[in-house]
Amino acid sequence: MKKLINDPRDVVAEALVGLALAHPDRLRVDHDNAVVYRAEPTRPGKVALVSGGGSGHEPLHGGFVGLGMLDAACAGQVFTSPVPDQVLAATTTVDAGAGVLHIAKNYTGDVMNFDMASELAAESGIQVESVVVDDDVAVEDSLHTAGRRGTGLTVLLEKLVGAAAEQGRDLDAVTTLARSINDRGRSMGVALTSCTVPEVGRPTFDLAEDEIEVGVGIHGEPGRERRSLTTAAEVAQMLVDPVLDDLGTVSARERAAIVMLNGMGATPLLELYLMFGEVAKLLAARGIVPTRTLVGSYITSLEMAGCSLTVLEADEELLTLWDAPVNTPGLRWGA
Amino acid sequence: MKKLINDPRDVVAEALVGLALAHPDRLRVDHDNAVVYRAEPTRPGKVALVSGGGSGHEPLHGGFVGLGMLDAACAGQVFTSPVPDQVLAATTTVDAGAGVLHIAKNYTGDVMNFDMASELAAESGIQVESVVVDDDVAVEDSLHTAGRRGTGLTVLLEKLVGAAAEQGRDLDAVTTLARSINDRGRSMGVALTSCTVPEVGRPTFDLAEDEIEVGVGIHGEPGRERRSLTTAAEVAQMLVDPVLDDLGTVSARERAAIVMLNGMGATPLLELYLMFGEVAKLLAARGIVPTRTLVGSYITSLEMAGCSLTVLEADEELLTLWDAPVNTPGLRWGA
Repeated sequence: MKKLINDPRDVVAEALVGLALAHPDRLRVDHDNAVVYRAEPTRPGKVALVSGGGSGHEPLHGGFVGLGMLDAACAGQVFTSPVPDQVLAATTTVDAGAGVLHIAKNYTGDVMNFDMASELAAESGIQVESVVVDDDVAVEDSLHTAGRRGTGLTVLLEKLVGAAAEQGRDLDAVTTLARSINDRGRSMGVALTSCTVPEVGRPTFDLAEDEIEVGVGIHGEPGRERRSLTTAAEVAQMLVDPVLDDLGTVSARERAAIVMLNGMGATPLLELYLMFGEVAKLLAARGIVPTRTLVGSYITSLEMAGCSLTVLEADEELLTLWDAPVNTPGLRWGA
Repeated sequence: MKKLINDPRDVVAEALVGLALAHPDRLRVDHDNAVVYRAEPTRPGKVALVSGGGSGHEPLHGGFVGLGMLDAACAGQVFTSPVPDQVLAATTTVDAGAGVLHIAKNYTGDVMNFDMASELAAESGIQVESVVVDDDVAVEDSLHTAGRRGTGLTVLLEKLVGAAAEQGRDLDAVTTLARSINDRGRSMGVALTSCTVPEVGRPTFDLAEDEIEVGVGIHGEPGRERRSLTTAAEVAQMLVDPVLDDLGTVSARERAAIVMLNGMGATPLLELYLMFGEVAKLLAARGIVPTRTLVGSYITSLEMAGCSLTVLEADEELLTLWDAPVNTPGLRWGA
């Protein structure tokens, strides 16, 4: 294991120290609870957004705390759900009278712990709603998951719902929007290499020198199949087809979409742009217009090499929310 | 070699196709010359900034074209200087009557080819000045380099000088600023793994499983020494000490700085933030206050694992230029 770390048990805590020191103008970190907050408290009357999950997917979620996105992010240990106490602390802290939306990715532990925190918060009079993101079309059930896994769409959802909350929409409206975004977006990933959880010290899975894992999960869960390494053009097809097939009916007219081509952690931007070119050609052939794009590493799997594609069909409302100002370490514009 | 590419000979051209498709609102690409331009032509009377160099360091330089940074970036083949014709085409295209500043990193081929283009441009009546960035304190001469190598400071310089050009400063003022920034900034890197140039197909250098290259160059050039892999805290010391020693006299008062902790391509953000925490503690102990920070992969070496530190002493003028709006794929705020 070759990593820039100290004691493997301290990786998450020490990364949070660095995050706080790097962005004191925008973030503060509760190190006891491993929760990342905005530097400024939630504006009274604004719906607060709380997300979180296992660490190792940075910048998700801590790097998406700030104006126009999350109010708080709960950092679990690497690839491990945050505990209910963390989520409860975050929920209690950020509630500004208008309620709190929990954004969880669909993994059994995450969903259970967010639910538990939600019940505890409700007992103390805080209104809490939840959305569970399950956008990964690769497999129906998986390790740690009943139903589909939650992956890249989480990034887009946090941005869009964050903008809606900033506009002053109420908890019902924000929740409805979040669920509708989850209905309209799909993702699929591919791994070229495994990753190594620091406390485990050996690769999560093994891939031969000429193998790729098509449909890999963000913790290295098995995908649909192992294939031989092939061209970027063919890999793009392996991602685009399942995503668009799942998104549904072929339409004669062109459809606008927000498209993310995401790096898993160790794939350089040179390759991601090359892959985006291949993906964009295939999308165009099926009438999808990438009206807004993200190309880069936004939801990672430690030092896994590979990439994932997320396509979210976008109407004018979503495009307007997308363009609204955002100021977080991981995503920033207009502010 | 496990990469998301098609034919290794087409990597740069195809990545430029993807870059253009991903950012049509901000960039246009001259594919014949492999030059990235802003979507909008240079404003009449604004000094134009042209940079470039070998590819494989993305987002540098093409990802830094846009409002508040470069007007054009010339993409060489991977780790190969752009040719004079590319630089000349870029220079001629972006000149808006106020002259052009060339920003080159200190590698023999880059400097020679930018110089040649500069002479040719001058013959056709375009005013051209140049700055050569040589911030890497690791070694005095190197493979491909007489004097120090140009590395991470290039990112900061392109941002700051870009803001000054946007303000309407003239070519002399912009050039003087660029040289003064080069005088005040230093960098040093460390590699945990090598990288593989696509057309070569095998790693540029070999490192044992427990070895790191301290002072590595951005093309995998040898650094100061090979050491055993150790803690992040000790690696941070190996970067901070040479950078600050070289920056000069110990001062009793605190000094503001713009600090970049940069990933080499395959190092995940979790590790970069952890490293930033270690670096920040050491800087504080020596009176350096990281008033502005970048943590992420901004000047990479394909899929090399490792990181580099850049420290630029910053007065009020530099901080104001830093905070000015920038809108490029690689760096964006206030716009």
